[in-house]
Amino acid sequence: MSNETIVLHEDTRSGNCYKIRLLLAHLGFPYERRQYDILNGGTRTPEFLSEVNSNGRIPVLQVGDRYLPESNAALWYLAEGTRFVPEDRFDRADCLRWMFFEQYSHEPNIATLKFWKVFIGQENWTDTQRILATSKKDAGDAALAVMNEHLEGRQYLVGDSLTIADIALYAYTHTADQADFDLKAYPYVMAWVDAIALEAGHVPMEA
Amino acid sequence: MSNETIVLHEDTRSGNCYKIRLLLAHLGFPYERRQYDILNGGTRTPEFLSEVNSNGRIPVLQVGDRYLPESNAALWYLAEGTRFVPEDRFDRADCLRWMFFEQYSHEPNIATLKFWKVFIGQENWTDTQRILATSKKDAGDAALAVMNEHLEGRQYLVGDSLTIADIALYAYTHTADQADFDLKAYPYVMAWVDAIALEAGHVPMEA
Repeated sequence: MSNETIVLHEDTRSGNCYKIRLLLAHLGFPYERRQYDILNGGTRTPEFLSEVNSNGRIPVLQVGDRYLPESNAALWYLAEGTRFVPEDRFDRADCLRWMFFEQYSHEPNIATLKFWKVFIGQENWTDTQRILATSKKDAGDAALAVMNEHLEGRQYLVGDSLTIADIALYAYTHTADQADFDLKAYPYVMAWVDAIALEAGHVPMEA
Repeated sequence: MSNETIVLHEDTRSGNCYKIRLLLAHLGFPYERRQYDILNGGTRTPEFLSEVNSNGRIPVLQVGDRYLPESNAALWYLAEGTRFVPEDRFDRADCLRWMFFEQYSHEPNIATLKFWKVFIGQENWTDTQRILATSKKDAGDAALAVMNEHLEGRQYLVGDSLTIADIALYAYTHTADQADFDLKAYPYVMAWVDAIALEAGHVPMEA
């Protein structure tokens, strides 16, 4: 990796930002943090949109004077060439498979429901949110079921050591109870969550 | 890449499957194709779920006896080490940034609306689909605006040649009119779409 300064543009409450902090902790890599309040439009200001991310989202990984949006792209940038990305070509792509699964089938359901429940509050939901909550709950359960089936007899999602696929999916799985998902229904997922928290170098979300 | 046989499990009508055919055409790489009818539960059969993809989706890239779901993971597997993935570390991650953007901010809006309009038919929509269509149209337009701003003064999304980021986003952008998006409002996107179709090795979606 380059010697340029790494700055994480983040909101500490976001699981997508936590992924990157968790990987950086495992890597022991120094970085700066810049905080934004996503609940009050902190990532929709003219300055943020023009300088950091025109898509108005965090996290963004700043590398020198270049900006990299998308949490899982940041994981890849930081982890490539380390033990957190597999050496085998198929396994490397399989890591990305789980990371795309996370952003398509897992995060839009489990993270969004957590956000609505914890930060917006069910009493403030719009009619659309009320309608969507049911399908997001079903789709989130389907995603957890896919993980549970895969993790039966496996310690990690890909290969036999911790990769960025585990880190990406850990972020919103380990707090899925806050979105009213019952991890007890997914025993292999629960064992995997518990084991990841015991990895040397692990840091909790609140760190 | 290995010498194992490549099989694409697909539905020809899916833009996510087309991405892979387009890349394989550029690579001139031989492969087999296996068709499923997504409109009639072809990817939800017990055989498909147990052998090909427990998440019930196509495309899946089969490499020998291993199965790789997620269209953009398949692009990475096939393109790594070729001219369709940049050599620079930051640019490589930036390619993934646009591919995660595609699966999070673009495809769930533009591809889903196309599917609902072309394959389900507006007269058959549920109340939920009717409510969601408006927010998906707005979010799809926001995604096209992000691309348009980025493509001003650029020929490609990343670097100065065609990469899998372009291939991933081309798939559903070039048919966005079928989802009632007006590409004339995004002139840099329109120029980029036109230019990609003129690249040597290009094949249309219907091929």
